[in-house]
Amino acid sequence: MVGSGSWATAIVKMLEDNNANKSVFWWVRNRETADYIRRFRHNPNYLSAVTIKIPKRHIHTDVRLVFDHADIIILNTPAAFLKAALAQVPPEAFRNKIIVSAIKGIIPDENQIVGDYLQEHYQIPIENIAVISGPCHAEEVSLEKLSYLTVASKNTDVAALVASLIGTRYIKTNVSDDIYGTEYAAVLKNIYAVAGGMCHGVGFGDNFQAVLVSNAIREMAYFVDTVHPIERDIKESAYLGDLLVTAYSQFSRNRTFGNMIGKGYSVRSAQLEMNMIAEGYYASNCIQQICTKYAIDLPICNAVYNVLYQHRSPVAEMKALAEKLT
Amino acid sequence: MVGSGSWATAIVKMLEDNNANKSVFWWVRNRETADYIRRFRHNPNYLSAVTIKIPKRHIHTDVRLVFDHADIIILNTPAAFLKAALAQVPPEAFRNKIIVSAIKGIIPDENQIVGDYLQEHYQIPIENIAVISGPCHAEEVSLEKLSYLTVASKNTDVAALVASLIGTRYIKTNVSDDIYGTEYAAVLKNIYAVAGGMCHGVGFGDNFQAVLVSNAIREMAYFVDTVHPIERDIKESAYLGDLLVTAYSQFSRNRTFGNMIGKGYSVRSAQLEMNMIAEGYYASNCIQQICTKYAIDLPICNAVYNVLYQHRSPVAEMKALAEKLT
Repeated sequence: MVGSGSWATAIVKMLEDNNANKSVFWWVRNRETADYIRRFRHNPNYLSAVTIKIPKRHIHTDVRLVFDHADIIILNTPAAFLKAALAQVPPEAFRNKIIVSAIKGIIPDENQIVGDYLQEHYQIPIENIAVISGPCHAEEVSLEKLSYLTVASKNTDVAALVASLIGTRYIKTNVSDDIYGTEYAAVLKNIYAVAGGMCHGVGFGDNFQAVLVSNAIREMAYFVDTVHPIERDIKESAYLGDLLVTAYSQFSRNRTFGNMIGKGYSVRSAQLEMNMIAEGYYASNCIQQICTKYAIDLPICNAVYNVLYQHRSPVAEMKALAEKLT
Repeated sequence: MVGSGSWATAIVKMLEDNNANKSVFWWVRNRETADYIRRFRHNPNYLSAVTIKIPKRHIHTDVRLVFDHADIIILNTPAAFLKAALAQVPPEAFRNKIIVSAIKGIIPDENQIVGDYLQEHYQIPIENIAVISGPCHAEEVSLEKLSYLTVASKNTDVAALVASLIGTRYIKTNVSDDIYGTEYAAVLKNIYAVAGGMCHGVGFGDNFQAVLVSNAIREMAYFVDTVHPIERDIKESAYLGDLLVTAYSQFSRNRTFGNMIGKGYSVRSAQLEMNMIAEGYYASNCIQQICTKYAIDLPICNAVYNVLYQHRSPVAEMKALAEKLT
């Protein structure tokens, strides 16, 4: 496991509670955090109620040691910090390993989803890459609330192997061959959560939110069917479910960010106030570029982009958007 | 307008705020309520903030007078009270009128959706019937929050006419020819809201709720495509949007009812406690019979039926349901 945020901690818990025979090695960047986990068996910063059962000697602050030990690497840093996390890892360290992305976002500067980034920068064959997707709040994993994850890979044997390592009595897994659709859906849903927050911020109600989300899932279907046309049902949990858990969560960072923008905060002051950057902010720019490349129009994503990057008024932009929805 | 609950009051407001030339006549069953509305121009019981602009002499306590005056009848009582409301109305009073159902429910005893009931009991041609569907909380209409309604009729000219009378600056309308699908979706969503409440009541969280809803929309698609197979996109607002606004509303009667059942109340005590009957309770029995007739299996509806009508434990039933979801 590479990363020690809440989602990483949740997946560490799943790996431990899962019955398959395995050893788990964990890269924790911060030395103090690593010491705390070794000593007290809890992550001091995230999901602190979860008992960490990994042997002390499996917790490393040097990411290369984790790569040395592991056959399967789960990448689980914020997208914005992946490059820094992997800076010390030479490309050959990835060779013959299965690389799993639990990151839901776009690599800044590169404007790529993680799957594409890994292929291009580390020459990892697509068949060796898998992604883990929700709908799943990490907080509910720590409470052992029943949740469903989808593991997607071009190679469904790889996806099934990963799934066999994280399923527990409270985690059910689906296996999918739609790695691109799954990853793009996870990115798009953050933009739609920003849109939902913006609409709330400018004063729209729950009736409108339902219309927005039912348009958003159609827009998502159009996007993924254009960018990666394979047979899929967008109403499955990995797509629609993931959108729902984010769009209807009061705790979503992306929704909160959109709400602040809708209420009139500038992007910069919203970021300062939240002390973090919502993934949907980067995703918006990336998806806009892909839309330009494919010459497709996504009204909701476009409205979010216009507000975040073109200094357009959220009130005017959301009203104009409303005219396009059905 | 036949009926004086919150949804009837909301549509009266739309009819008044709409610019088309028309006269609105309103049947208000209770004489005191009618007097109050005539005198104070507000409905004392529902959406009391809304100013009623209908001329005093257009408010009747005899439903037959409304039928005498109107070319278009909007039925908007609770489904359980429709029969009583129409008891004094002879079948010939319906002749050559457009009958619009704004009722979202099943006629008890008959186990029919309103469209079928009207055709069978009043020999109204299906082309003269329309339904108005959400996603739309009446409360948000009173606040003039932007909302989208769908008007459906076999005869889309009829649907368009009705839509032209209720659209306002805060109400956008879609026209559909899918009267059966729209009405069944509005009935099914109440069962799914009961299911969502039950799952919450027995302790499932938001992750599971997202999975439940994304399975529910697939189940709804399967049902309507079986019972009334025409081309439709279940992700449109009248289907998915209506499901979302109900399933994710904390104020939904159906969700509250399901939650109480999930927490261990009996059906009878939940009804007593709520002082009203959730539409989803009747809908569950009706849909179960239709499923038997068509020999189709809807796992979510079936689980709700088993709890409400077969005295099965909500905990056991929801756990068994969870095994069937993906």
